[in-house]
Amino acid sequence: MSDESFDLVIVGGGPAGLTAGIYAARSGLSAVIIDEGMCGGLAATSPWIENYPGFEGISGMDLMQKMKEHAEKNLPINEGVHIDSIEMSDDGFVLKAGDTIIQGSAIILATGAKYRHLGVPGEEELAGMGVSYCATCDGFFFRGKKVIVVGGGNNAAVEAIHLKSVGAEVSLIHRRDSLRAEGALQEHMEKEGIDQMLSTELLAIEGTDKVERVRLKDNITDETRTMAIEGVFISVGEIPNTELAKLLDVELAAGGYIQTDRTQRTNVRNAYAAGDVTGGLRQIITACAEGATAAMSAYEDIKTPYWASR
Amino acid sequence: MSDESFDLVIVGGGPAGLTAGIYAARSGLSAVIIDEGMCGGLAATSPWIENYPGFEGISGMDLMQKMKEHAEKNLPINEGVHIDSIEMSDDGFVLKAGDTIIQGSAIILATGAKYRHLGVPGEEELAGMGVSYCATCDGFFFRGKKVIVVGGGNNAAVEAIHLKSVGAEVSLIHRRDSLRAEGALQEHMEKEGIDQMLSTELLAIEGTDKVERVRLKDNITDETRTMAIEGVFISVGEIPNTELAKLLDVELAAGGYIQTDRTQRTNVRNAYAAGDVTGGLRQIITACAEGATAAMSAYEDIKTPYWASR
Repeated sequence: MSDESFDLVIVGGGPAGLTAGIYAARSGLSAVIIDEGMCGGLAATSPWIENYPGFEGISGMDLMQKMKEHAEKNLPINEGVHIDSIEMSDDGFVLKAGDTIIQGSAIILATGAKYRHLGVPGEEELAGMGVSYCATCDGFFFRGKKVIVVGGGNNAAVEAIHLKSVGAEVSLIHRRDSLRAEGALQEHMEKEGIDQMLSTELLAIEGTDKVERVRLKDNITDETRTMAIEGVFISVGEIPNTELAKLLDVELAAGGYIQTDRTQRTNVRNAYAAGDVTGGLRQIITACAEGATAAMSAYEDIKTPYWASR
Repeated sequence: MSDESFDLVIVGGGPAGLTAGIYAARSGLSAVIIDEGMCGGLAATSPWIENYPGFEGISGMDLMQKMKEHAEKNLPINEGVHIDSIEMSDDGFVLKAGDTIIQGSAIILATGAKYRHLGVPGEEELAGMGVSYCATCDGFFFRGKKVIVVGGGNNAAVEAIHLKSVGAEVSLIHRRDSLRAEGALQEHMEKEGIDQMLSTELLAIEGTDKVERVRLKDNITDETRTMAIEGVFISVGEIPNTELAKLLDVELAAGGYIQTDRTQRTNVRNAYAAGDVTGGLRQIITACAEGATAAMSAYEDIKTPYWASR
C-alpha cells in the first residue's frame, strides 16, 4: 500500500476488524483494514463452526472468506502489511510499515490473540483434527467421545466441566500435583465425575489424520504410558497480541488483555479495541459485535465528538 | 406446548433469543425459546440488510429464517405463545401461558422493542419502502437521495448527521419551534448544511409502492404543502417491551430499557436480558452477541454458580 490518510485505521482482519470495517465505511468514515498476514484471524483456523447465527455449519475458513468479501465491498483491505511502529500525532496516529506511512484520526486495535501451545509432538500436526484450544467452540463435536483437558487453572476446569456438560467423557491432566483452579470448581469436577490425573505430563499426541492416543508420563514414578483418546483440549492460557497497544500506552487489564469500556473505547483518545485482544467470551459473534461497536464509537468521536459523552 | 421444566427459558425469538438458544443448548442446558408471535423480531421487518457479517446482502426475513432454522437444530421453539404471567419460585421462574405452565431455573428476556410510530397516513403502508426507523440500518440505501428525518431529540439529530455523512440530502422536520437536541448537535447539523424545518408537522406520507412525497403543515401559518422526497426516517423514540421485566421487578435504565452489566445479568438472580430490550446500538450483530453472552452467563450460574463471581 502507498502513503495514505484515513479517518480510521483498523489493525487486524479477523471477525472484529472486518465487522468494524463494514460499519465504519457504511457510516461514511474513510477507513482501511490492515492485516499482518491473511484476514480471518484465529476463527479461520477453526475446522467447523456451528454457533455463528445464520450458518448451521461452516468451516472457519469459508466463514471468514465470506466476511472478508463482505468487508471488501465496503472498504480497502491490505494483507501482509506488518506495522513496524505507531505514534500519536496532533491529529491522530501515524503508523509505519516499511517505507509506507499510514495516518489515521482514529485506530481500532483488533489484533487478536494466540492460544498458548504446549509444544509437544503432534500438537501442530493434529490441530483441528482432535486438538483444540476452545471447548466452547468445538466441545459439541465431542459428545459421547473420550477427551482430555490439559491444564490446571480455572479455565481448564471450566473447559472440562463444559465438555462433561456437553456429553463427553472427560479427564483433566495436569503436570503438577495440585490444581490452581479454585476449590469450588475442583469440587464441581469431582461431583461431575471428571477424572483428574495429577502429576501427569502430556508427552505427545499421536494419530493418523486424527487424534487417536496420547503418551503420558507420571511425574512421580517417571513411568510413561499410552492412552486412547479422541480429543485433546489444551487450556494453558492465551496470549493477546498487544504489541501495538503497548506502543500507545493503552491500558491492559488482567491477563494482559486490552481494557475497554462497553463502547470499546480504551484509555487513549480515539483508540478502540475489539475482539479476542480484549478477552471476554472469545466467540466470533461477540468479536463481530465489538467491532461494530468500536466503529460506531469512532464514528461518534470523529463526526459528533460532543455526542460521545452521553 | 405442554407443561414443562427447563434449565433456561428464553422469551423472544429475535436475533438475541435465537442466538441465546443456540449457545445454551450447545452448552448442555435444557432450554426453550418462546415467542408471542413469529420468530425474527424487528430484524425480520427490515427489507434489506447489508451489515450482518457473512451476508453481503439479505432480506431481514431471509436472515431471520436462517437463524430460526439454525436454532431449531439445537432446541425447541414455540411460536404464538403469549406469556400471561411470570413469578419467581424457590427454584427459578414460573411462567403461565393460558393453561400451560412453563418452569425455568433461569430466564433470558429477549423481548425486543417497538419503534414509536407517528400514526400518520402512509406510515404503515410504506414501511420498508422508504419509511424507516433506523438510519444506521438503512441509511446507506439513501446515498444521493433526498430524505427527511422526523423528530427533535438527540437521536433525530444523530440520525440526520448520519444520513448526511452517508451522502443523503437531509432535512430535519420537527413540529415544535425548537429542537430538544443538545446545542452542539444542532451546531453540527448547521455546519453540515442540514436543513431544519421547525414548527412543521408531517401530515401524511404518499407514494405508490415507494415514498414519493410528504404532506407538511406549517404550525404557525397552518398552511399545508407537498414536498417530493424518497426517504422518511422517523425518530420519535422506541418502546422497549418490558412488561415481563416489570413483573419480575427487573431494574430498568434510562429510556425504560432493561439494565444489565456486561455479562447481560440483571439485578434479579438468574434473570438475564439481551437485544433491543436493553437499548444500545440496536443492531442484529450486537443483539446476537448479547444473546450468546446471556446464555453463557446462565450456563455459568446454573452449572458452575461459584464461578460466576470471577
